[in-house]
Amino acid sequence: MPRKSLHPSPTGRPAFDLAKFLETRTAAVNAALDRFLPSEQTKPATIHRAMRYSLFAGGKRMRPALVLAAATACGGRESDALPLACAVECIHTYSLVHDDLPAMDNDDFRRGKLTNHKVFGEGIAVLAGDALLTQAFEIAAQAKGWPRYSHRDLILEIAKASGSLQLIAGQVADLEGEGKKTSAAQLKYIHERKTSALLCCSARLGGMSAKCSPAQIAALTDFGYHVGLAFQVIDDILDVTQTSEKLGKTAGKDTKAQKATYPSIVGLEKSRKIAEELTARAFAALRVFKGKAVALEALAEFLLKREC
Amino acid sequence: MPRKSLHPSPTGRPAFDLAKFLETRTAAVNAALDRFLPSEQTKPATIHRAMRYSLFAGGKRMRPALVLAAATACGGRESDALPLACAVECIHTYSLVHDDLPAMDNDDFRRGKLTNHKVFGEGIAVLAGDALLTQAFEIAAQAKGWPRYSHRDLILEIAKASGSLQLIAGQVADLEGEGKKTSAAQLKYIHERKTSALLCCSARLGGMSAKCSPAQIAALTDFGYHVGLAFQVIDDILDVTQTSEKLGKTAGKDTKAQKATYPSIVGLEKSRKIAEELTARAFAALRVFKGKAVALEALAEFLLKREC
Repeated sequence: MPRKSLHPSPTGRPAFDLAKFLETRTAAVNAALDRFLPSEQTKPATIHRAMRYSLFAGGKRMRPALVLAAATACGGRESDALPLACAVECIHTYSLVHDDLPAMDNDDFRRGKLTNHKVFGEGIAVLAGDALLTQAFEIAAQAKGWPRYSHRDLILEIAKASGSLQLIAGQVADLEGEGKKTSAAQLKYIHERKTSALLCCSARLGGMSAKCSPAQIAALTDFGYHVGLAFQVIDDILDVTQTSEKLGKTAGKDTKAQKATYPSIVGLEKSRKIAEELTARAFAALRVFKGKAVALEALAEFLLKREC
Repeated sequence: MPRKSLHPSPTGRPAFDLAKFLETRTAAVNAALDRFLPSEQTKPATIHRAMRYSLFAGGKRMRPALVLAAATACGGRESDALPLACAVECIHTYSLVHDDLPAMDNDDFRRGKLTNHKVFGEGIAVLAGDALLTQAFEIAAQAKGWPRYSHRDLILEIAKASGSLQLIAGQVADLEGEGKKTSAAQLKYIHERKTSALLCCSARLGGMSAKCSPAQIAALTDFGYHVGLAFQVIDDILDVTQTSEKLGKTAGKDTKAQKATYPSIVGLEKSRKIAEELTARAFAALRVFKGKAVALEALAEFLLKREC
């Protein structure tokens, strides 16, 4: 992975092994999710099979990785951050299950597998999404609370990032924008809410689990916001440049649905430039961690360079 | 309202004015919900209009009334219970919005008005339900926490009652039972989850807001469970005996959808008897409150005698 341009390694610091980090943390998050969720045999089995089908469909666990990396950057323990990492992944997965419904994006494939409603039917898919959303709060409530960041703070953080002013607002604006002319400002509004809000929340939750300082939470907020925007610009670029097979979902969907995207508004080259600038700003936000945020840096760069 | 059979008034205690109680508490809950929710003008306006459309569609606010009445029975302040009352009403409303979807019960009318998806479309109705569910946790986190019942306890209480083992489990079993032969035991399983769980949770949350004793929470659990079952048996009876106009929703739907109901399994007379027995058991649970649970008693009787 070429990292020189954005991420010059200070003298003597060993290179960070992101592949290893992602592999081990994905395994830890999957194991924790498996413990938190009712088994596939638990009655009514259909709903638990449906929840687990989408939750264990091979997601990249980027949000949990952000939670854990942010906790480490703030000197905390990953074990304290793990329930929060699982909670944001439940939120993310619920939003995908509902977004894929025929009444929304009407997608047949996600992560290379049939979408939830294609396997379990629309009624169960709606309920599986509901159950994952509810499960997220049940899991988050089981995280440790601190005097500085109590359960009240943790729940409010997740609820606000996922609510009608953020995650859901983004989906609504996206839905209402289909087939209409969308300005760059409107597109940014959608991206900030649909993607940035939960990535920002992930970084902040990691910090909160580590009893981070006000300066640290401000830095994580700044970092998460810019990484989130960059992530979505890249998503738009990949939708145009990659095949469905590589993406694991239907490529070219945005164009087909006449959805506004960065490439459609400012062009492919300018979009790449914007993603790089956003990532550079995310890097700048990490200065406060004085070299302790290596995992966050590597994640930001990975998200910029990813090809699927 | 004839109350003699189940609720003999002890000498000297003034009769409880339930109509007045419901009127004033409904007003208080509506005002609080109005404060908690983003305004109809808040961007994106569609989602907030959709959330408010169903939340202020004239619901009877039975669950909030239970929360407030339980708080009073335990010597607490209604103001401490109010956010929790609002939270359970958001959960209840979200479940109705999603239940009414074409992929589920496919209902056109609810509380005498068009259902959410008939007005806003299916996509927005799914998102409005999601947003109300998320809002419930945001509101609950704003309630007071106590050493005995912390925010962790309050959130877990709501998440468990609404999750895949309770509220959603009931809806799944209901959905999967359509057109199939259902036993009385299976029907009880559905009722316990689809209705009893949230009513039980409401009573318990009221007690928790009042820092209730272990004996009191046990009594409220027992009370809520039996009132919840009675409530659903009555619902089944009303579906057979009342007109759509009176119910504000499509009457006879259960029969038409070949859904198992108490009247269809044990007959109308036996169903009435069961509802009375369940209500009597709910009353018995209130003995521990030594006459302080007048509002809960009146509510239980009202739910038994209601005609819509």
